[in-house]
Amino acid sequence: MDALPQTAPAKSGAKQFLDQLFGAGVLTETGVDGLYGRSGDFEEVIERFLALVTRTAGADVVERIHFPPGMPRPMLEKSGYLKSFPQLAGCVHSFMGGEADHAQLLQMVANGEDWTEMQKATDVVLTPAACYPLYPTVAKRGPLPADGVLFDLQSYCFRHEPSQDPARMQLFRMREFVRIGSPEQVRDFRETWLERGPEMIRSLGLPCDIDLANDPFFGRAGKMLANNQRDQGLKFELLIPVANEKPTACLSFNYHQDHFGTLWGIAQANGEAAHSACVGFGLERVALALFRHHGMKVANWPKPVRDVLWG
Amino acid sequence: MDALPQTAPAKSGAKQFLDQLFGAGVLTETGVDGLYGRSGDFEEVIERFLALVTRTAGADVVERIHFPPGMPRPMLEKSGYLKSFPQLAGCVHSFMGGEADHAQLLQMVANGEDWTEMQKATDVVLTPAACYPLYPTVAKRGPLPADGVLFDLQSYCFRHEPSQDPARMQLFRMREFVRIGSPEQVRDFRETWLERGPEMIRSLGLPCDIDLANDPFFGRAGKMLANNQRDQGLKFELLIPVANEKPTACLSFNYHQDHFGTLWGIAQANGEAAHSACVGFGLERVALALFRHHGMKVANWPKPVRDVLWG
Repeated sequence: MDALPQTAPAKSGAKQFLDQLFGAGVLTETGVDGLYGRSGDFEEVIERFLALVTRTAGADVVERIHFPPGMPRPMLEKSGYLKSFPQLAGCVHSFMGGEADHAQLLQMVANGEDWTEMQKATDVVLTPAACYPLYPTVAKRGPLPADGVLFDLQSYCFRHEPSQDPARMQLFRMREFVRIGSPEQVRDFRETWLERGPEMIRSLGLPCDIDLANDPFFGRAGKMLANNQRDQGLKFELLIPVANEKPTACLSFNYHQDHFGTLWGIAQANGEAAHSACVGFGLERVALALFRHHGMKVANWPKPVRDVLWG
Repeated sequence: MDALPQTAPAKSGAKQFLDQLFGAGVLTETGVDGLYGRSGDFEEVIERFLALVTRTAGADVVERIHFPPGMPRPMLEKSGYLKSFPQLAGCVHSFMGGEADHAQLLQMVANGEDWTEMQKATDVVLTPAACYPLYPTVAKRGPLPADGVLFDLQSYCFRHEPSQDPARMQLFRMREFVRIGSPEQVRDFRETWLERGPEMIRSLGLPCDIDLANDPFFGRAGKMLANNQRDQGLKFELLIPVANEKPTACLSFNYHQDHFGTLWGIAQANGEAAHSACVGFGLERVALALFRHHGMKVANWPKPVRDVLWG
């Protein structure tokens, strides 16, 4: 008997889910992994989820600041990001030549040659996490008030990790609350959100767990940093099964100790280096979890879920 | 008599306005021209203006799609943008080396050397205008319905033109309605918005004029393209005095003829290449015009303006 015809390798659960999202028009393919268009329904789900987060924050006194998806390159260089996550950073390069260079560039594009080296680095890098531009901004204001400060941020973020897992986009939105103050203020804030987060996600009919976590630090030295972060309980994640064997981190709860306070020179009212913590909401990931668990048609989602989002 | 002490050159109106925005906390300095944080009030003004635009669009049947601030590099290469505006484009480069390269990169950062050449171009470029990723997306769907199509887009856009004019940011948001169909459908759409636009802006207590315009095409050959664009009446702008001697283009009304239809292969129902037009709303520019004319404190804006935005 002849050999059976070869079949394509089995698609991962993540790729199957991605194709399902494309098929339903929830996401639109662009030709680059991790770079997708979003449907109007997808956008509305994110808007309604943002409103739920605002309601959950309740009477918290927050200052809202919005930063664009790019920030100054010197800020990234000083932040330590290139030490920990060099492979994820994105730096914007532009063409700065004259007309002769331009003719050459167009010729290279026409020939399918690599024209990108005709560009030079600009002063702009892509924001890797919504809170990065905040710390130097706060430092410039001088010592914190005795109650510390609490910020409400939202930004597109870039991470260079092309993937067919729809929950791992190269450009995605993150909302963050960032608390800066004394160790007690900052740890209280994180505790509060470690309670609020799962309650909020369960109200959307989604299963979830909180787990200790670490950042994907680069290289061999990074393993030590990751272990250290776990040993000290600095990072927790709220995990929801989306499309992978392992559930996906949709919220994260990070205690930075005085890392950013010392780095940027943010002082508490008593003069000591400020501590900070943030809770981050992965907006695309939460939306994807909702489409995964409740189906591709928003109008058919369970009434209790619709009531929470559109109520 | 001794020479008088030298004074700094007089600040331009744009720089004075920028400093006023910084002073009032409406914008936040980051250290790079054209890259600023936005206050909560600024964001709310944009949100309320977006709602006004939606109300103005009324019963128009639109499909909303949202694209992230980056798009595939091949899409930009094919679009012709590098021919017309090479100096404005931004291409994302990332570090793709191993641990030894990483050690060298960190050493260069520490020494203040230029480490950016250790990066390579990724597949991602920054979106120059909200509608660029739309055309290939529409082309893939096949021929248009007889009524054509109308899309509602919003995206962060990047243009490499560092400036101290707050109305010329490097990263800014643009909402766009894009009509694709027959020449008549597309011209009707543009006519409608050439009426709606000024009416909407005047309802916000802002003075405005509509004028013929051209894009800032690169180089000597660009001058001809610009003249051609003007001669054919392809671009109009809604101008509001903001902070420059010349008023600022806050909305633009563009008729592309069959340029994108032919380039991307979008067919009308009758098989001919589709025509397209777009109306673009510069969200930061409109917000800045409001702060300029009505003052730095949103609560003190004239009641009729507040009624339109918050009514």
